[in-house]
Amino acid sequence: MVKVIIIGTIGLDTITTPFGQVEGVLGGSATYASYASSFFAKTGIVSVVGEDFPDEHHQMLTNRGICLKGLAKKGKTFRWQGLYEFDMNEAKTLNTELNAVSEFEAELPEEYKDAEYVFLGNIDPELQLKVIGQLKNPKVIAMDTMNFWIESKKDKLIEAIKKVDVLVVNDGEARQLFDTTNLVAAGKKILDLGVKAVIIKKGEHGALLFTNNSHFNAPGYPLENVKDPTGCGDSFGGSLIGYIAKAGKLNDKVLRKAIVYATSIASHNAEDFSLERMKKLSNKEINKRFKEIKNIRKF
Amino acid sequence: MVKVIIIGTIGLDTITTPFGQVEGVLGGSATYASYASSFFAKTGIVSVVGEDFPDEHHQMLTNRGICLKGLAKKGKTFRWQGLYEFDMNEAKTLNTELNAVSEFEAELPEEYKDAEYVFLGNIDPELQLKVIGQLKNPKVIAMDTMNFWIESKKDKLIEAIKKVDVLVVNDGEARQLFDTTNLVAAGKKILDLGVKAVIIKKGEHGALLFTNNSHFNAPGYPLENVKDPTGCGDSFGGSLIGYIAKAGKLNDKVLRKAIVYATSIASHNAEDFSLERMKKLSNKEINKRFKEIKNIRKF
Repeated sequence: MVKVIIIGTIGLDTITTPFGQVEGVLGGSATYASYASSFFAKTGIVSVVGEDFPDEHHQMLTNRGICLKGLAKKGKTFRWQGLYEFDMNEAKTLNTELNAVSEFEAELPEEYKDAEYVFLGNIDPELQLKVIGQLKNPKVIAMDTMNFWIESKKDKLIEAIKKVDVLVVNDGEARQLFDTTNLVAAGKKILDLGVKAVIIKKGEHGALLFTNNSHFNAPGYPLENVKDPTGCGDSFGGSLIGYIAKAGKLNDKVLRKAIVYATSIASHNAEDFSLERMKKLSNKEINKRFKEIKNIRKF
Repeated sequence: MVKVIIIGTIGLDTITTPFGQVEGVLGGSATYASYASSFFAKTGIVSVVGEDFPDEHHQMLTNRGICLKGLAKKGKTFRWQGLYEFDMNEAKTLNTELNAVSEFEAELPEEYKDAEYVFLGNIDPELQLKVIGQLKNPKVIAMDTMNFWIESKKDKLIEAIKKVDVLVVNDGEARQLFDTTNLVAAGKKILDLGVKAVIIKKGEHGALLFTNNSHFNAPGYPLENVKDPTGCGDSFGGSLIGYIAKAGKLNDKVLRKAIVYATSIASHNAEDFSLERMKKLSNKEINKRFKEIKNIRKF
């Protein structure tokens, strides 16, 4: 039985960075997040692809032990084209073809409704709410979002945030959500909505965790060779829910460790295009970087 | 006898932030840096002010125990006018009157030539070299710089960097110095110039330390109420050299602690205009925040 379910996109990406270009490679928030989560717990995907989705990707995910019972098939696969310039921190979207994603229904297979650990990837907050409504007995729900939904569906987004345990956003989104540049102020306002924990991702600068009684400041891992940052945020989110599921509880200690494991996996992910680096990644390497992160913070 | 000497500007600042405005208040890199350094060690200033420099500031610094034997007087005092907008990370310079600073000679008083710990604030690299040339037996020289010198006097700047032990720069300057967005790469290239340690300040995101055998990642302190960030970089640099002088040696452990003390003091400095917060700051408060920084990093 799956312990974690991940809702999000699966797509084919065309990506250009200063270090190369790849065309039509496997991507999407649910892909990166589920792969990362699967380092810690049995994971299932709720998503949609087109009839053109290459069988090899389907096979690769299945071989990895990721459950695809929640994967619908219709029309054409979601496609995204992105460009990273000299400053690798942010992708410029060159083209998006929603295709199948525009008809995504987010219907959970019967057995997924019992899932205890859920990650709602960045999709329409109405669909996030729909997923929450189908869950019978969730223990921890974490969610991600993006500026597009803050701008276009803020009310629904706030409604969804109020129903989850952990909100994961990046610094720009946190600032935008409450119209403040101050991340501490933004974190507190998000906590006021009733979530138990807010994690603000700051790219290479690490992440901040705010809970009602504590604050944690996680470093970015100092990577010298970043090849493609696509999917780092998603693999961060997936690692997070995976580790929480493995721990079987949500407290400050678990959250802090989860964030550092997520940093380890996400930083590895940036070392190659698509899922290439994660596919080769061993638990030994994940733990090694976890320890390195400990050492670069000692004083 | 002074243990630390600080070279830099003393000026009168007019500053506007979203939280208020102050006119003609005490500022300048040497002012902030020496005040911060004086929490740890007997500190002297090498700088210049005008005949119009208010006596009360002179008195305040003297009462603090800061030695002003290296303070020249000619013409009018340096003035700077800056504006911080919604994003408090960077000041927009509205006006600069160099005045006395344009004739700054950086001549050390005889007794300062024996100083063992020296902080070369952000001034013309030719003057930084001139100061280095006057030192008889320096133990640790740290230096700061800014984009202006990287653009206009890069050769002299590199010559100066090669002669110091610790370079303190912000992330933008580090990237600019070696034309790379990657801070790890920039840090390594600076180490290749022969310095023992490079500290890259990232504002609210903390600081990175690179030495030949280690890397340290210092967090920013999560401040909710930033009133005026002016002088944070300078008080960071001053705290750093002050703590190193107090420790009496330069190694990885000392540098890491020095950076966290510097973070504590610099973050306090941002809580009010000019030196107002530092003037009220106690060792107990500095240590309290030092411990808080430890706690927000535990995992």
